[in-house]
Amino acid sequence: MTREIYLDNSATTRVFPEVADRIYQIYVNEYGNPSSMHHKGVEAEKILRQAAETLAGILKTQPKNLIFTSCGSESDNLAIIGTARARAREGKHLVTMKIEHPGVLEAMRYLESEGYEVTYLPVDRYGLITAEQVKAAVRPDTLLVSVMHVNNEIGAVEPIAEIGAAVKEANPKCLFHVDAVQSFMKVPIYPAKMKIDLLTMSGHKIHAPKGVAALYVADGVRLKNLIYGGGQQGGLRSGTDNVPGVVGMAMAAKILYDRFDEDTEKIVGLRDRFIRQIREIPDVRINGPAGEESLIDKAAPHIISFSVKGVRAEVLLHAAEEKGVYVSSGSACSTHHKSAKGTIDAIGADPAYRDGTIRVSLSVYTTEEEIDEAAAVFAEVIPFLRRYTRH
Amino acid sequence: MTREIYLDNSATTRVFPEVADRIYQIYVNEYGNPSSMHHKGVEAEKILRQAAETLAGILKTQPKNLIFTSCGSESDNLAIIGTARARAREGKHLVTMKIEHPGVLEAMRYLESEGYEVTYLPVDRYGLITAEQVKAAVRPDTLLVSVMHVNNEIGAVEPIAEIGAAVKEANPKCLFHVDAVQSFMKVPIYPAKMKIDLLTMSGHKIHAPKGVAALYVADGVRLKNLIYGGGQQGGLRSGTDNVPGVVGMAMAAKILYDRFDEDTEKIVGLRDRFIRQIREIPDVRINGPAGEESLIDKAAPHIISFSVKGVRAEVLLHAAEEKGVYVSSGSACSTHHKSAKGTIDAIGADPAYRDGTIRVSLSVYTTEEEIDEAAAVFAEVIPFLRRYTRH
Repeated sequence: MTREIYLDNSATTRVFPEVADRIYQIYVNEYGNPSSMHHKGVEAEKILRQAAETLAGILKTQPKNLIFTSCGSESDNLAIIGTARARAREGKHLVTMKIEHPGVLEAMRYLESEGYEVTYLPVDRYGLITAEQVKAAVRPDTLLVSVMHVNNEIGAVEPIAEIGAAVKEANPKCLFHVDAVQSFMKVPIYPAKMKIDLLTMSGHKIHAPKGVAALYVADGVRLKNLIYGGGQQGGLRSGTDNVPGVVGMAMAAKILYDRFDEDTEKIVGLRDRFIRQIREIPDVRINGPAGEESLIDKAAPHIISFSVKGVRAEVLLHAAEEKGVYVSSGSACSTHHKSAKGTIDAIGADPAYRDGTIRVSLSVYTTEEEIDEAAAVFAEVIPFLRRYTRH
Repeated sequence: MTREIYLDNSATTRVFPEVADRIYQIYVNEYGNPSSMHHKGVEAEKILRQAAETLAGILKTQPKNLIFTSCGSESDNLAIIGTARARAREGKHLVTMKIEHPGVLEAMRYLESEGYEVTYLPVDRYGLITAEQVKAAVRPDTLLVSVMHVNNEIGAVEPIAEIGAAVKEANPKCLFHVDAVQSFMKVPIYPAKMKIDLLTMSGHKIHAPKGVAALYVADGVRLKNLIYGGGQQGGLRSGTDNVPGVVGMAMAAKILYDRFDEDTEKIVGLRDRFIRQIREIPDVRINGPAGEESLIDKAAPHIISFSVKGVRAEVLLHAAEEKGVYVSSGSACSTHHKSAKGTIDAIGADPAYRDGTIRVSLSVYTTEEEIDEAAAVFAEVIPFLRRYTRH
């Protein structure tokens, strides 16, 4: 079998085998519907509740503050569109960043088409915004501020706690939504402490299955549901509860939670080791805070973005793939999306470099050997491709 | 271990172990994101496409006509609200039945709150409507008719082919949506032949996992998406593709498809065997078409609804549960729902019986022995409960 070095963990991750085992058991043995009143329903309801308690414990909140959805985009939509619809009479203004996941940006664009006004904050050349920018943008009629915790393309970690404080200072009634899909279980996040009202998390980025995600909803926050039906989850999300999905998500989060410090130290070490090796290739730039010694605290542990002069990302990606190294050009989520180079444009990347941007994203499975081999592959193919693809 | 006779398959089903095995493999080995451009993404895209082809083959349609969602309610909502939003300028009228799943009824009520007009057709005492009723209700401004194929509480099979023809005769531009959650892989359904434009199917009712469902969308049908994001599935359903879920759904459907005739014959035999035994208990009535010899062709193979005079369903359900027999009172989907007795009221059930309505739902796993034991349990507990709970 050919070597496989999977460095696209920000696109999706391998499900933990112990999570897959547990889901298998639920599939074939504990398959009840929590809405059923007999023992099999009660059993399902109990394992669902225990999973919600596990996840709530990690977030230092309560199960009643968690809504389970099908994906990060649905959670983003429920937070943003759900707030706008529930509170349309109180204002029509929202604030977000220019660099956000399409689940946020497209929800905002939809609201604009419905007569809402959206302020898109620019980022600096590392992909960062400041609490001051947010504070200046919030108005008395601002319903919600939505800021991504960790950028999915360049790994910038936004100052969420400061932004949370700034939002509430500027307008105590304004809600604060954080898309934490790329940060959950990678960068510590405590909604109450950080004044977050709505927090999006996704299962398949943390070694749980695709098809399950969550939205934290702080006490007292009013939302309008997007899906109408049997009234599950307090009416906020109808549809048969995805028991195995929720259990898998909570279990994966707990596994990562219990070894968070060791994993983070290891992954940060691998990130920095990879960056050191990539820097030795001529005309390659590291994007985002990880590229700047003084900003390294604002870089996500698991995401490395680099831009190569004179080689197109797609060509580089396929050359790496042939050697068993799987990385991404930009983010997988934007493949279908018109503004695929959103972040790279927003940080004002040098035109000579921007078309050669590669994202490498690590996980708890990533080893030092894999990192070294991947870096060696890039060191080999970049000069080669430059020789043969330059015009 | 205590005996467990699971007769609540209309609430949810056991996942086929071979489906669970396949999903396990995808979780830990073929876990790529179809949006990724490298081999692991391409592999995921391929298994997703193959699954869509399998399901499309069963429906005699094409993969491009299938949208994958997270649950039956989401599919219902996408069909109904998606049509209303996409075609609001062409009309504001919709037609449905009084007895529908909350995924349909609540979507209709939401549209009413947005200024749409909805006609709710009454059913006869077996839960059936006629094509003539539908034809008379369709107007030049009717956007969509939504009819459940198999009623989830009493198993009435609506005359979908006749209704499809009647809809198009009355107004060729009017769309026809069918909620087939309870009928898919139980009663043959061919969207094109039956003039169905939109068809809702769900995974967890056919021995596939919870958290995945589908919507068939005929060529040329315009819908507005409910979830905004990365633009997956032609923009109609953003969010990372739930590859293992879709594969599981297609695989379960194929397993059932390949043994459809034998399974149906067996399940119909079990249904009739159960009904014969239940009929021997005094003051018990079989609801829906299955209760009437001449209408047996209009009864779903797998659902039996019966009403017991003088005993409340909840009490009966728990007495049966103590003997290891798991059934439902009404439908699991309506536990959270205000109109829990919708169908039983709509068929004009005798007030002395209506509070004692039990649903028994079979699957390919159900055995003759289980049916006989379950019937014996009811024959034992019903007289007992009548003695001790009557006032």
